[in-house]
Amino acid sequence: MNLQDYSAQMLPAIESELQQFVDRLGQDRANGFHEMLTYHMGWTGEGAGREAQGKRIRPLLMLLTTAACGKNWKPALPAAASIELIHNFSLVHDDIQDHSDLRRGRPTVWKKWNMPQAINVGDMLFILAQMAILGLQEHFPAEIVLKVDGIIQKACMELSCGQYLDISYESQNNLALEDYWPMVSGKTAALLSACPWVGALLGGADETQQEAWQNFGHSLGLAFQVQDDYLGIWGDSALTGKSTESDLVAGKKSLPVLFGMEKRGAFAKRWSEGPIQPEEVSFLAEQLTEEGAKLYTQQAADQMTELALQNLRMAAPKGKAGEALYELAHELLKRQA
Amino acid sequence: MNLQDYSAQMLPAIESELQQFVDRLGQDRANGFHEMLTYHMGWTGEGAGREAQGKRIRPLLMLLTTAACGKNWKPALPAAASIELIHNFSLVHDDIQDHSDLRRGRPTVWKKWNMPQAINVGDMLFILAQMAILGLQEHFPAEIVLKVDGIIQKACMELSCGQYLDISYESQNNLALEDYWPMVSGKTAALLSACPWVGALLGGADETQQEAWQNFGHSLGLAFQVQDDYLGIWGDSALTGKSTESDLVAGKKSLPVLFGMEKRGAFAKRWSEGPIQPEEVSFLAEQLTEEGAKLYTQQAADQMTELALQNLRMAAPKGKAGEALYELAHELLKRQA
Repeated sequence: MNLQDYSAQMLPAIESELQQFVDRLGQDRANGFHEMLTYHMGWTGEGAGREAQGKRIRPLLMLLTTAACGKNWKPALPAAASIELIHNFSLVHDDIQDHSDLRRGRPTVWKKWNMPQAINVGDMLFILAQMAILGLQEHFPAEIVLKVDGIIQKACMELSCGQYLDISYESQNNLALEDYWPMVSGKTAALLSACPWVGALLGGADETQQEAWQNFGHSLGLAFQVQDDYLGIWGDSALTGKSTESDLVAGKKSLPVLFGMEKRGAFAKRWSEGPIQPEEVSFLAEQLTEEGAKLYTQQAADQMTELALQNLRMAAPKGKAGEALYELAHELLKRQA
Repeated sequence: MNLQDYSAQMLPAIESELQQFVDRLGQDRANGFHEMLTYHMGWTGEGAGREAQGKRIRPLLMLLTTAACGKNWKPALPAAASIELIHNFSLVHDDIQDHSDLRRGRPTVWKKWNMPQAINVGDMLFILAQMAILGLQEHFPAEIVLKVDGIIQKACMELSCGQYLDISYESQNNLALEDYWPMVSGKTAALLSACPWVGALLGGADETQQEAWQNFGHSLGLAFQVQDDYLGIWGDSALTGKSTESDLVAGKKSLPVLFGMEKRGAFAKRWSEGPIQPEEVSFLAEQLTEEGAKLYTQQAADQMTELALQNLRMAAPKGKAGEALYELAHELLKRQA
């Protein structure tokens, strides 16, 4: 069993678990509502399929952790579904907040229907995520279910605080490098940290082990985000592909941009003058490189990656599932585009 | 102890419980976020105070039920806070969805800040509501906490389905009278039904009694909504006050309007031709009366009120708290404006 074998078993089980909760909606009067949810989840509508569903990284990470603690991963499925539903709730609202037209190559929910319905679709995904937590009762004692609930709510609070910072940063031009970490700790790391934490709890790990797993998820999330920020400026699709995919055009306050702003050099000057145009992208990326942002970001990504792998070793995953977890971490952190 | 005495004890306790959960947010980096939440809750900002906080009907209803089951209401406070936070989450999102500028006489959150932050404020209120449920663990066994959780999530699902219908109805002109009940069952009755249900569960009521309490809340919610719909057209502030407060101008598909649409008479003709202007309000209200909508709505309100009181008798509330509950129900259902 390697990562591919585990994925082949787990992904269909995750999909069917998710579907079960979304189908709680009933299909008489709320027919159209159900359709909005299944569309967003990538199961129905134009372009439905694997590509539209996303990678389901979070539930996979959780279930592999339970398996790497030496336990059967199947009873943990409702928790895995809950985390994925929360991730998707945040995507639906994020797309409205960012005014994004496309998600995984398809029109976003607010674009396809309208903004009021899309807010409500996000809300319902979050409500179904709460329902999913309760689904753990079939296999776990009530005290454990409440512990999982507490971990997930804490992650959601951090997620929402990160979202607040992200939206606030858009209109702030006096940000420092140190403003970066609390924002991404919330927006990316909180939910990713909850995955192995809950997975370990449901895998019977003790509190010390749970902490190691939690740290692994947190540093994995940060490493992933810094890597994403790097690729958003120097990745193939940002530079040589459609330069509209560059974070510079999107105006994203990513780590390299915050580094450049703090330097107060030529990049900062141009950045402060207003939106970056696609034709400026390669010049400004070069500018950032010269000012040291590329090296800094690469080093931060390397450090976080090293920390994540170190935390994974501390968590001491067992057996083939443990090896698959190393594989998953490497796959997430070695993306090239 | 009458309703006023109970309110004098319970309302400050509810407020301080709510505050405790909102303060979980911390106040370092998320300072501005905390301010948005306390503003909406009516504690800070211009116009803060009792008026801005709303009536806290839902938590009051829950706590009175626990007391009317012969138990101490104080341990039930986290559940009461949870329901009120959910109500407020739905208000914040509703105001965005309806594009409403004012809530309880003050600028709405999206109007005062912006739409992206307001979506996130609603999300955070909902997350805090989940946290609040977990707060019950201090006084109740885990199994009971999960039961409360299940009741509240079910109510939220219905609330969100009702919201879906409400938004959908806006663009539908072939609605029938029967489309009304599923919408208001979700939008108004679901959460109101959860209040006495949870209150009774935490008051140690058995399942049969819980069902009676749940039915009381449900019919109270429907009666309240039908009454609200009546006042929205024939109430003092709709007719003789600012006629912009009329549901006719707002284009709301309320019970009298659906009645009129189904009649396909003069009212339906005018309604189908586009937005109603303030100067048409008294004429169209009269038209609806002539077509039988006023009598029909009044009868529906009376029937639902009778049912609610009957269900309350079935639930057999005890002692002074029981009397206060009758008082509360009468107060809710006998509003004149």
